[in-house]
Parts: sequence; C-alpha cells; structure tokens
Amino acid sequence: MVVGIVCSIFTEYVSCTGCLYMDTLNPQVKAVEYAVRGPIVLKAGEIEKYLEEGGTKPFSEVIKANIGDAHAMGQQPITFLRQVVALCTFPELMDSPSFPEDAKWRALRILQGCGGHSLGSYSASPGVECIRKDIAAYIEQRDEGVPSDWENIYLTTGASDGIMTILRLLVSGKDSSRTGVMIPIPQYPLYSAAISEMDAVQVNYYLDEENCWALDINELYRAYQAAKLHCQPRVICIINPGNPTGQVQSKKCIEEVLHFAYEENLFVMSDEVYQDNVYTPDCQFHSFKKVLYEMGPEYFNSVELASFHSTSKGYTGECGFRGGYMEVINMDPEVKAQLVKLLSVRLCPPLAGQAAMDVIVNPPQPDEHSYKQFHQEKSSVLGALADKAKLTEQILNAVPGIKCNPVQGAMYAFPRIFIPPKAVEEAKALGMQPDMFYCLRLLEETGICVVPGSGFGQKDGTHHFRMTILPSIEKLKVLLGKVRDFHISFLKEYSALE
Amino acid sequence: MVVGIVCSIFTEYVSCTGCLYMDTLNPQVKAVEYAVRGPIVLKAGEIEKYLEEGGTKPFSEVIKANIGDAHAMGQQPITFLRQVVALCTFPELMDSPSFPEDAKWRALRILQGCGGHSLGSYSASPGVECIRKDIAAYIEQRDEGVPSDWENIYLTTGASDGIMTILRLLVSGKDSSRTGVMIPIPQYPLYSAAISEMDAVQVNYYLDEENCWALDINELYRAYQAAKLHCQPRVICIINPGNPTGQVQSKKCIEEVLHFAYEENLFVMSDEVYQDNVYTPDCQFHSFKKVLYEMGPEYFNSVELASFHSTSKGYTGECGFRGGYMEVINMDPEVKAQLVKLLSVRLCPPLAGQAAMDVIVNPPQPDEHSYKQFHQEKSSVLGALADKAKLTEQILNAVPGIKCNPVQGAMYAFPRIFIPPKAVEEAKALGMQPDMFYCLRLLEETGICVVPGSGFGQKDGTHHFRMTILPSIEKLKVLLGKVRDFHISFLKEYSALE
Repeated sequence: MVVGIVCSIFTEYVSCTGCLYMDTLNPQVKAVEYAVRGPIVLKAGEIEKYLEEGGTKPFSEVIKANIGDAHAMGQQPITFLRQVVALCTFPELMDSPSFPEDAKWRALRILQGCGGHSLGSYSASPGVECIRKDIAAYIEQRDEGVPSDWENIYLTTGASDGIMTILRLLVSGKDSSRTGVMIPIPQYPLYSAAISEMDAVQVNYYLDEENCWALDINELYRAYQAAKLHCQPRVICIINPGNPTGQVQSKKCIEEVLHFAYEENLFVMSDEVYQDNVYTPDCQFHSFKKVLYEMGPEYFNSVELASFHSTSKGYTGECGFRGGYMEVINMDPEVKAQLVKLLSVRLCPPLAGQAAMDVIVNPPQPDEHSYKQFHQEKSSVLGALADKAKLTEQILNAVPGIKCNPVQGAMYAFPRIFIPPKAVEEAKALGMQPDMFYCLRLLEETGICVVPGSGFGQKDGTHHFRMTILPSIEKLKVLLGKVRDFHISFLKEYSALE
Repeated sequence: MVVGIVCSIFTEYVSCTGCLYMDTLNPQVKAVEYAVRGPIVLKAGEIEKYLEEGGTKPFSEVIKANIGDAHAMGQQPITFLRQVVALCTFPELMDSPSFPEDAKWRALRILQGCGGHSLGSYSASPGVECIRKDIAAYIEQRDEGVPSDWENIYLTTGASDGIMTILRLLVSGKDSSRTGVMIPIPQYPLYSAAISEMDAVQVNYYLDEENCWALDINELYRAYQAAKLHCQPRVICIINPGNPTGQVQSKKCIEEVLHFAYEENLFVMSDEVYQDNVYTPDCQFHSFKKVLYEMGPEYFNSVELASFHSTSKGYTGECGFRGGYMEVINMDPEVKAQLVKLLSVRLCPPLAGQAAMDVIVNPPQPDEHSYKQFHQEKSSVLGALADKAKLTEQILNAVPGIKCNPVQGAMYAFPRIFIPPKAVEEAKALGMQPDMFYCLRLLEETGICVVPGSGFGQKDGTHHFRMTILPSIEKLKVLLGKVRDFHISFLKEYSALE
C-alpha cells in the first residue's frame, strides 16, 4: 500500500486512515444543523430502546412531540385518500365493490396520466400533467378566481425538496458567500440547513414575540440594510402559518412583505404548508399569491414568487408519501427551462405522493358518495387540532415562568421558558445551550421529547422549546401536566441555588 | 419602485427585469446537462402532442426508447409487489380474501415498523429498521455469506438520491474545484450532472469499446495521473452492469479496480442498479463488496465503498416509486453521523418506495403461496429482456455502418454509428453535435426517440446513440427495422454528397 507516500505529498487531502473523514468531509455538510432530528431525538431513541429492553425510568414511555408526524401520534389516515392511492397501486381493485366509484374514477384518471397507465413509470419531471392541472384549478378556487397556470406547478418530493430546489437556483456556488437569504427567526431549520449546505449567507429577521410573533416590516428593513453591508440579499423566505411559532399572518403584513420584496427586487419563497391548519376564529389564511394579485398588476406581473404546499401537514398528515408541490410565478422563461432541467436529473417525484397530492386538491364534492365521510374525517382532525391548540396555550400559560403565544395555526407551540441563572450557568459549564440542557432534563425525567428553541433561533437571552400539538387529547393533557410539574420543580431546584 | 437606483449600485446582481434571470442564476445549475431528458426528448414530446392534435407525420406514434422506464413501455408490474404496497397503503385490505397471506404478513411487518403503523408517518431518516434488516439479509445471501450490517444500509429516493448524497459528502464546496470524481466514459449523465452541480472536477476514464466496453486498469491509472496535475481525485464511480454500455464486468476487472482504489486511497461508488439484469450466459454479476471481501481483510476492512440499488430497474421496473438503498462500508463513524444528519434534513425516503424495496429483497419463498406466480412473472420479464438484448445486437450489427457490442446486461444498446463527413459538416454548421443531428433526423423521420452518444460521453470522433431494449418484442422489431432503413438512407444521402 503506497498510502504512506501519498500522505506525505498530499497531507491536506489524504489520511492514512481512509479517504473520507472529518477533516476531508465537505465543510458545508459539517456546518449543517437540523434540530428537529438532532441530538435530543437520538437520545429519545436510546431511551426508548432501553425501556423496550426492560430498563426502568421514572416513566413508561417516550412521548415524541419533536416532529410534526401526525400518523406516528395516532392520527388516522383520510380513508378516501388511501383508497385512491391503493387503487392506483393495485388497479385490480377497480373491480372490487368495496371501493367507491368516486375513488375509482379519480384513480383511473391519475393512471391515464401515467406512462403505461402505471404508478411504476416515471412521470414528467414537473409531475403528472392532469395532477398539475388539478392543482392549478384548486389554487384558483382557493384564491377566489386569481388565475393559476398549470405549467407553473411543479410536483415535489415534499415541500423541503421544492425549497431546496428553488434555493439552488438562487444561490450561486462560487459567489455563494455573497448571496443573502432572509429567513424568520425563529425558523424551521430546513432553511438554515439548506443555507449552510449551499454556503449562502443567512440573514435573520426577528419575529415579534411580544406581538404574537407578527412580522414587523421595520425589522425586515433593518435586517436587509444590515445584511447589505456584507452580502447581497436576493430572497426572502416566509413561513405562514408559522413554524415553529404558530402565528397566522394578517393580510396587511403580507402586503407589506410583498411591497418590500418588490422594492428591493427580492425573490419571495412562501412556505404555506400549514394553509389548512388555522384554528383561531379571528385568523384567516391569505395566500401570498392572492394578496399579490390584489395589489394590482404592477406587483402581480413582476414579483417572483414560489409558494410551497405538502401532503404532510393539513388534515391528511401524509408525511411518508413525500408529496408536495410548488407554484412559481413570474419566473424568467429561460430560468424555468433551467429549473426543469435541474428537476429532470432527479427524474420525478414519487408517484404515490403525487396521487396523494391530487386527492388533497381534488377532494370529493357534495354530490359524490365519499363526500360525507371525507368531510367528517377532515373536520374531526381539524377540530381536534383546534381544541389541542387552545388547550396547549391555556395549560402552558398557567405555569409560572412559561409564556406561550396563541397557537393560531400550524401544529406547534413555541413557549418561552424562564431558565434560572444558575441553570444557565450549569448548562454553559457543560458546553450546552441552556434550553438544550432544559430539554434533556425534561426528556430524562419525564420521557417527553421536545426541541430546544436554539435549534430554531431566538433572540439572545430568551429560551423556548417547540412541541407539537399532535398527541391525542388525553396524551396531550398528560404531557402538558408533566411539563408543568417538571418546570415548577426545575425552577425550584435552581432558584434555591441563587 | 426604487429598483432603478438599486440597479445602478448593484449592477452585477440586480436587473431591472427581476431578481432571477440567466445572468444571476447559479452558474453550476447552468452547467448541468442531462441528455436522457434533454432537448431531443422535449422535441419528442412536441411531436407527440402534434400527432394527438391531428397533425401528420411519416409515422403514427413516437416510440420513446430514450429512458429506462419499463412500465411506460408496457411491462406489467410484479403482482406480489403491488399487493404488498396496496396492503400497506390501505390496511383495510387485510380482511380481503383476494389478497394472499404471504403478502399480508409482509405488509403487516412493514407497518409494524412504521410510526403509528402507518405508511403516512416519517420513517427514521436511514429508513424503516426492519426493511434495513431485510436488505442486509438479502445482501448476505446474494454475496454467499459475506457479512452485511443493517446499520450500514440507507434507504434512498431512488439510486440517484443516494449517489448525490455520497458525492455531497466528498465534494467540498470551497475546495470543490480541486475534488476529482472519476467516472467512466460513456457514463450515465447523472454523474456528470452531479459533478457540474457541485462544481467538482470530472475525471474521465474511457471504457474500451473494442473490448466489449471493458474497464482497462491501465486507462484508470492514466486518467488518475493526468488528473492529479490539476485536481485531487478522491472517488471512483463504476457502473456495473454498465449504463449506457451494457457490459458486465469480470471479477478480475473488479479486483483490479478495488486494488487501484486501495492503493490510491479512493472512495469507491459502485452503481449496481442493474445487478438483476444480466443476460449473456457466460457473464455473471459480481458485487464489488463480495470481490472486496475475497481480496482479504486488508482490503475488506479498509476500502471505503458505497453500493447503490434501486426498485426502478431489475425485473420490477418500479421507477415511479422512487425506491432504492445504498450500503456503505468502512465509512468513518463520525462521517456516518454526518451522513445521517444530512439525510435527516430531507426527513426520509418515500415509504411506499421503501415497501417496494422490501419486496425485492424479501420475495416469496418456495413454500409460500405467491412463489409460483412471482417466479413466473420475474422469469418472464428477465427472459424477454434477454431475448430483446440478443435481437437488438443482431439486427443492429447487420446494418452497414452500425456496430453494436453485445448487450450483456442492463437495459440499453449503445451502438456505434458511422456518420458520413458531409453529415458531420452539416451538423457543425448548425452548431450541433453530429450524433444529435443524427438522432433528431431519426426522430423527425421515424418517430423513434433515442439519446445521442454525446450526452453520455464518447471518444472524440466516434458517434453513438443509446436506446433501451424495453419496447415489446413486436415494437422493438419495428423500431430496429426503422433504424436500419433510416441509417441506410442517411448514409446514402450523405455519401452521395461526397
């Protein structure tokens, strides 16, 4: 083996212990952080295994409130959606009398759009044509007549895939250190991870916790001006309804963001995967596209906007299908051709996910057989989520040292937690963020797995955690009771040390 | 709108016509090429639409032999695979007497490995644990006892996703222009596209067309030494059986490649998605891992190897499910943790694709109900492919000016075509590669869509095209007849001009 010799020549690249190790790993990969599946979740997995193998803890099960994974928390699939996907998967079921006709014709229509009438063929890279058309029709209806062109619709492998793809167009490799991507803080860590991986500059704009996590336009200008000193911001990302923050943006706020993007010539990425998850009666989902339309043709014909949706959230919670779409408007036609080329390298999004997406945008109509059951199941999921949103806010706000904004939408509470100075010191001595220290203690003592606020970003000196509101109402009550008891005893323990 | 002012300050970034246009697009995206879905395929789509709308051409249908999309070409799905996936999708079918018990228990087992027993939950980022275990068991059996650790198995969204992920670890952004990736020429253009997107250096090693596209070890050394003058080669990619070239590598050749990788400390990526597609009786698939094992512990415990498989090829042809896996051995444990982190940002591969992968590695056994039908369907697909491989080679080799190596495996023929100098000149005058010119003429005159060899790479001055052998035997005969007639008249037309 001549590696010894090679080493002496190429010490910066080659180690005698192998080709790929931490020193040679792509440093942008090293820089990526993804808290939702980070160290605390690995720890939760270890504890789960330990319990399964007969180990004992002060609790009998780990409750994973770290990730928006509805089915894992017991939510049942929407029957009609699964019927359509099963029919597409195994068309012999078309002869089965136990499948309703409205599911059958939808499956048939999807299959007619597939090569060889099979879910096993590749689709066109932007997705099955009839599904793209259904999505455009759905958007037009949702936005009360604002036109949607099906050729602007691209199916994706979940929303994350779409977000990464658009960012890749915008973030140029060689000049990447000069491309600024504006993201809310707190944010969903896909954004910061993508920015690290692509070596772009993360430009933080802070949401206003005192004002129910509203987006303050002055803060946007501040962030933009500050960033311009060291990079060129080219894109602004908005998550509405908010993840992890749960706010639903007002129409006025969206107008201001769009005006800002128009003025500063920014590409707008609106992450609207929680568009069906709005709980507070005085809040309403406004799509960025519709608001842009209402601002008039000067805006609607010029602001470059990509909006993202997914099968994973809403009332379906079909995360495992990895379905989603993006609508891209005002994109330069040549760039669009480049986008299609880029998508074609990955061939196509999974067909079962595309079929699931089709059901979401083309649900049973009032005159169809499956309408009643579909509607019942949908209302039941969304009703329960609204109840759990309210319950979570109420119980958390009754705990001294915890303050939780209303969960107006999405699937998470992001309460602010007071961590006593002595606990902050102890965490720092362990080389740990204080909220990571807090969440690890919570996990170890109660079995509850939530994600530290530091994984999403937060104002310096403040601490939070993100928890989903997805457990069943009974389990959620238990969970919140345990959080309360833990927090009180944690405060007591560390305040006694003052 | 203040864009006018912004323009004057940041002319290098901002245009008055929008944010994202060709000048501001990530240049690495611009550099990507992907011939399999490139301009000729777009043209084929246009002609198809034209025919559908009543237009006339010298042919009645476009035959797409450009992409390995078996179901689109009429191949029927394997019943058992679809039964298992349908059962997983709609578990109410567990009560149906028309589904066999062996499919039911497989589906049940997969669902037990899913959060909430639902295909709609996220799996762990590397995949469902029991499926990873089934894959490891399958590999051990395939490789006659060579150990496989399930924790080295990562489910992927098709093989392309796995290949991109491993390359991303190896290609560092900032030093990327110095990271060399060795690929065969001709190659599957995913590799060149990924290299462009990541801004790595493509290091070509040429397969030996005169010797049935064998990999010549001297050529590897030549390519490596030449590359070292301007970059540091860190990884070697091999496609076996070959795409687009169809050769099946000998054990000796694989040993040589592995010895070379060991000596030069290269990471080995073996694309083995066609491992079930071997047609010539005197050829056999040897996995890189098994050969490495047989070379002894000095090799087996040190060479870093990732091997890729997929649901899209083989006898299943389930492209639309986007299923696949990679087995990664001898990866540094810290790097493995980084790999898992990177995977976790994309959450997980589609669950239906994971289930499909499970059926492939855990097919019905001789004592099970579905064995006979499964085996019949599998043999029928593979038998037909073997017949078509032979037929394609024979018919093409009977055409003057076409020379086709035996299609020992995979799904493609990559014949060398003689293009008369006058046609080369005409192509050049049009700013076109000669084989692109040829393939466009073929498409326009016969409706047959194949991919120019220039999209895969070829020795200067040689010309080829890639066609799949997937059409039904009747259609394939028509196709090959048309290719023959076209080629003869093309030769005649341009030779007359000499």
